[in-house]
Amino acid sequence: MYILAEVRIHVTKYPNMDFRKKNFAYETTSMHKLLDRASSSTEEGVGELCYLRHAGYDPRSGSPANLESDFPDLAPDFCLPELFEPPSRFFSSVLRVSSPKVRVWTHYDVLDNVYAQVVGRKKAVMWAPDEALNMYLEGDKSVVVDIDAEDNANRFPKFCRAQRHVGDLEPGDLLFIPSMWFHNMTAVDFGVAVNVFWRNLDAGVYDGKDAYGNRDLLQGAKGLRMLDNVMRQLDSLPEEIRDFYGRMMIARISKKVLSKPL
Amino acid sequence: MYILAEVRIHVTKYPNMDFRKKNFAYETTSMHKLLDRASSSTEEGVGELCYLRHAGYDPRSGSPANLESDFPDLAPDFCLPELFEPPSRFFSSVLRVSSPKVRVWTHYDVLDNVYAQVVGRKKAVMWAPDEALNMYLEGDKSVVVDIDAEDNANRFPKFCRAQRHVGDLEPGDLLFIPSMWFHNMTAVDFGVAVNVFWRNLDAGVYDGKDAYGNRDLLQGAKGLRMLDNVMRQLDSLPEEIRDFYGRMMIARISKKVLSKPL
Repeated sequence: MYILAEVRIHVTKYPNMDFRKKNFAYETTSMHKLLDRASSSTEEGVGELCYLRHAGYDPRSGSPANLESDFPDLAPDFCLPELFEPPSRFFSSVLRVSSPKVRVWTHYDVLDNVYAQVVGRKKAVMWAPDEALNMYLEGDKSVVVDIDAEDNANRFPKFCRAQRHVGDLEPGDLLFIPSMWFHNMTAVDFGVAVNVFWRNLDAGVYDGKDAYGNRDLLQGAKGLRMLDNVMRQLDSLPEEIRDFYGRMMIARISKKVLSKPL
Repeated sequence: MYILAEVRIHVTKYPNMDFRKKNFAYETTSMHKLLDRASSSTEEGVGELCYLRHAGYDPRSGSPANLESDFPDLAPDFCLPELFEPPSRFFSSVLRVSSPKVRVWTHYDVLDNVYAQVVGRKKAVMWAPDEALNMYLEGDKSVVVDIDAEDNANRFPKFCRAQRHVGDLEPGDLLFIPSMWFHNMTAVDFGVAVNVFWRNLDAGVYDGKDAYGNRDLLQGAKGLRMLDNVMRQLDSLPEEIRDFYGRMMIARISKKVLSKPL
């Protein structure tokens, strides 16, 4: 019975979870207890808040979450229209349970996915991939923890200028989140959702060891690694000359790679 | 006698010389005739305009212009304060002769230099190296041919936002042009100038085959070549994903190399 299954959850006092400050703890509990605790959290987002992003039972093996095998008695209740074909493009289906008010940091995934809201409401904010330079990223995550904080205008001016796409999810709603789109999801109420990921590109571009769907595409990751070598070429130059060649490199990428130059 | 020396000049009808359209011709003439023609050009910048940037008598050999050896009977008249030491940092001294109104395209050199105005007046406009992303560069040159054109605001909006440093040179004035500073020089009158370049960094950073002082520093050139390889990694990805990783690369350079992030 899925209700007895053990799950590993985030527990926090802070609605805005912060991946840098780690203002949450990990805890292993039963699904039964999680549902109890998450659904009894106050609506104001104070006290204990719980969050489950079920990673599958062996993410380190590289095998991603799969609702059917993780929760076989729950899975038949979840039926998704045919969103992609062939079905072998399927990558993972992730069960999410959330206390009211919990907000997950803004990030991108490298796989197309739909966010199926099952119970409760959620607020979704998204940014197109071409806002990457405005997102204050560390890896795949934005360091802007509270996307609505008043002092963002001072601390993260470019973030405030980035164009947001905002939506409200009701139970039964599906939100399509294309790969590389930044997204920030906030629970309005106690919520249950299932997030289904699939490979929209040829399998050869994906990192085979990626259980979460957030490791950079092989070509991108290789390019970024090589770029570190390129930047090292400039190490011996004086700061202002290094800055100059850094800008010359940026100009070159802008001209040759970007769809619309900076 | 320097006055009999043969020199290779630019001849044009257009005050704004354009390195892409090549709106000028090369011509070999004597210094005597050049001085005659350049000094008799109309003040309005119409008719034939001449420009000499003396490259030395064998630039292809990699040996740069040198007033002393190029024009031994003229050189003693030109005396520069000790601007750099040791004197072995000296790279080249370039004689320039210009009709009124001639404007040389905006560019940067990789060597520190002084521009010594000898005869006539010149208008100098400069931009700091950290404006590189606003200069619409092709190599070391800006494609903004007429820096004061009215439609620049539409065609080159970032160029119009870049901060200019403007100066008027009178005979006897010295203008220090640090390496990588973009500069645009316009003759107000018939003009003669000498431009003295020296190696401000260790000799090992300069391209030994550079007769003009405008080949990128070895580390910068190598970095830019390597960058082309990096960008090729992204070739097989769909356009919007390529754009995304291009921006991720730009973000990384901005963070790790620039003195002040974008």
